[in-house]
Amino acid sequence: MTQPLTRRDLLSRAAGTVGAAVIGSSKGSAQTQSNDTTKSPGGPPTELGLRSPHERLLRPTSGSNVSRTPHQDLFGSITPSDLHYERHHAGVPEIDPVGYQLLVHGMVERPTIFTLDDLKRFPAVSRIAFLECSGNYGRNAGPDSKPEQICGLTSQSEWTGVALSTLLREVGASSDATWLVAEGQDAAVMTRSVPMEKAWNDAMVAYGQNGEPIRPAQGYPARLFLPGWEGNANVKWLRRIELADRPFMTREETSKYTDPLADGTARQFSFVFDARSIITKPAYPETIEPGWVEIRGIAWSGRGTIARVEISSDGGRSWTNARLQEPVLPKAHVRFRHLWNWDGTNTEIMSRAVDETGYVQPSRDALRAARGRRARGYHLNPVTAWTIRPDGRVFYKEEPPW
Amino acid sequence: MTQPLTRRDLLSRAAGTVGAAVIGSSKGSAQTQSNDTTKSPGGPPTELGLRSPHERLLRPTSGSNVSRTPHQDLFGSITPSDLHYERHHAGVPEIDPVGYQLLVHGMVERPTIFTLDDLKRFPAVSRIAFLECSGNYGRNAGPDSKPEQICGLTSQSEWTGVALSTLLREVGASSDATWLVAEGQDAAVMTRSVPMEKAWNDAMVAYGQNGEPIRPAQGYPARLFLPGWEGNANVKWLRRIELADRPFMTREETSKYTDPLADGTARQFSFVFDARSIITKPAYPETIEPGWVEIRGIAWSGRGTIARVEISSDGGRSWTNARLQEPVLPKAHVRFRHLWNWDGTNTEIMSRAVDETGYVQPSRDALRAARGRRARGYHLNPVTAWTIRPDGRVFYKEEPPW
Repeated sequence: MTQPLTRRDLLSRAAGTVGAAVIGSSKGSAQTQSNDTTKSPGGPPTELGLRSPHERLLRPTSGSNVSRTPHQDLFGSITPSDLHYERHHAGVPEIDPVGYQLLVHGMVERPTIFTLDDLKRFPAVSRIAFLECSGNYGRNAGPDSKPEQICGLTSQSEWTGVALSTLLREVGASSDATWLVAEGQDAAVMTRSVPMEKAWNDAMVAYGQNGEPIRPAQGYPARLFLPGWEGNANVKWLRRIELADRPFMTREETSKYTDPLADGTARQFSFVFDARSIITKPAYPETIEPGWVEIRGIAWSGRGTIARVEISSDGGRSWTNARLQEPVLPKAHVRFRHLWNWDGTNTEIMSRAVDETGYVQPSRDALRAARGRRARGYHLNPVTAWTIRPDGRVFYKEEPPW
Repeated sequence: MTQPLTRRDLLSRAAGTVGAAVIGSSKGSAQTQSNDTTKSPGGPPTELGLRSPHERLLRPTSGSNVSRTPHQDLFGSITPSDLHYERHHAGVPEIDPVGYQLLVHGMVERPTIFTLDDLKRFPAVSRIAFLECSGNYGRNAGPDSKPEQICGLTSQSEWTGVALSTLLREVGASSDATWLVAEGQDAAVMTRSVPMEKAWNDAMVAYGQNGEPIRPAQGYPARLFLPGWEGNANVKWLRRIELADRPFMTREETSKYTDPLADGTARQFSFVFDARSIITKPAYPETIEPGWVEIRGIAWSGRGTIARVEISSDGGRSWTNARLQEPVLPKAHVRFRHLWNWDGTNTEIMSRAVDETGYVQPSRDALRAARGRRARGYHLNPVTAWTIRPDGRVFYKEEPPW
């Protein structure tokens, strides 16, 4: 809590004696001469500006192929590049950019190999957008579970690269081509089919992320980027694009990444993410105090722009609109904020996103009715809640088994 | 250059043998079995995602108090946090956030000390904006000079913090206060006066940068952020704000950071940056080839939004509008791009920014006429050129002494 001062405190401080020892601090230890940073020069600039040793920002990893963005520790809308989530199918290949080649062939007039220099020479585009794993769902943090991040498999960057449409014009793509297959250079040879409509629209072969070259775990030196579409189709370490008049029915899109539905059929090619939101603060393992609390989070939609985010602080009985932080960009995480006066009683807080198409983030029950009990963990975007206990501790709300 | 393929090449490659050894590469060495990344799994995710060892991104430092952003190596509009420029007056203090305190006093009803937790509890704001050193001018890269970055003393981040207006309301700022002084906790006790109009408008006490806590060299744990205003007034390691009815005439704003003018007077309080632009590619030490070249750069204005950027590729005789990358945000670097067909002859390329107020980035001669020969290196924003030699080498255009 803030701390009013006496006149004597102020005179001492304003006189330049930095009287923290006089003023005292409600939370910190008293400042002593020995750590008075005004008395001796600090360190010089270095070739790279490091983080404070007092801030421990790390991605929890699970198994050999997942790391999650710690959203509860982050501000703003950009995810630091070294905290971007990862989901690999066969680890991170080490690629020398000098030998990098991207082959574009199939239903094209001029099959062509592009080097990295070739890609960088074409007119470039940049956009701020989210990238999410389609499996960004599951039990995260609970009273007895490991404190993993909720929804840590989505992250946001400013991506830069060449529009795929530019390359398609360069190679003379056939107007009869309806699908392409994108293939990665990792040991999984990750391969996904993508409709040409998306390829011509806003797909990108990206080589830049947050101002710098893409990092190895994100597909260095170049990856496919499909704004708003499930992560695994954004093929990393991209080495080949082949155009055809049918989807390729690769292993990844037949044995996996199809969605069983309630009627017993399965949905194939669930590329686009529906609107979703999560509250990132307050969140486990934080403890809050009664009084004003700013509820903060992120909302996003693969279909376009977030129109509004609604907040409930009474377990879903009433909802009010949160403020959206400008700029509100399409297919991008947008930060929302809502000032809430907590009375110290047990409650649940939750957020619900609505996008420009009118789509409303569903309740868990509504989503379960549509997707059925056999739904696997892909493309699940239910409204989720944090439980606030009277002692101020915040827990992920336990739900019954799917 | 791109490389058309034979049918045999394609069959070999499409069959999955990754036939780079067959296809060959115009620039890289042939790919061999030993580095075929599809044959064995890559590395697992790590707690932080590191850069590729093939990318050497570093900030050149000069002396003990300056490091520069390598704009010629970067894409997009966000500067990676570890590549943000630095300009210190007495080094980087090491501050334990637990003991951090910000005192707000003077012409206020309730003089108050805020801890870092206090600041983070208030409603937050985020904005993408540039931060620039007022001394961002000077000879940079030339044929015989050290290849330093042109205009490397400006960088861009997404800043997050509490609006200063929120704190001013909290302490009951007097409506009679017209200035405040902001004081840093470094060994320079960096101190600058700021008009209250700016404080109420869009000033921020920032604790977040690009999604994470501000790094030590940028003012950890909290700094003043004044969008569009000269860097040194954005006091880092902020420990005190005092409200008054006059400027404080500190050392930094009397002995320094005033601008001699052509008429013999000096301009005090040159806070706002006028519009400016620089071409970041092609730039020294790059060598280009004849044909299509995308001229890329950044433009910004402390007064608001960039309206357009004009490009000349004939030494200033003719100008055409560049494309601006959306979103074009106020008081922010905006990336511009312009496709240019270089015929291989000697020429000069340059860019000229125009902002929403109609202000046009001046020529060097016009700026020199207004500012006079005694102008020091502060707030100089002339149109600058890169010289393109017939062999494709790119050099900063040499200018006569100021």
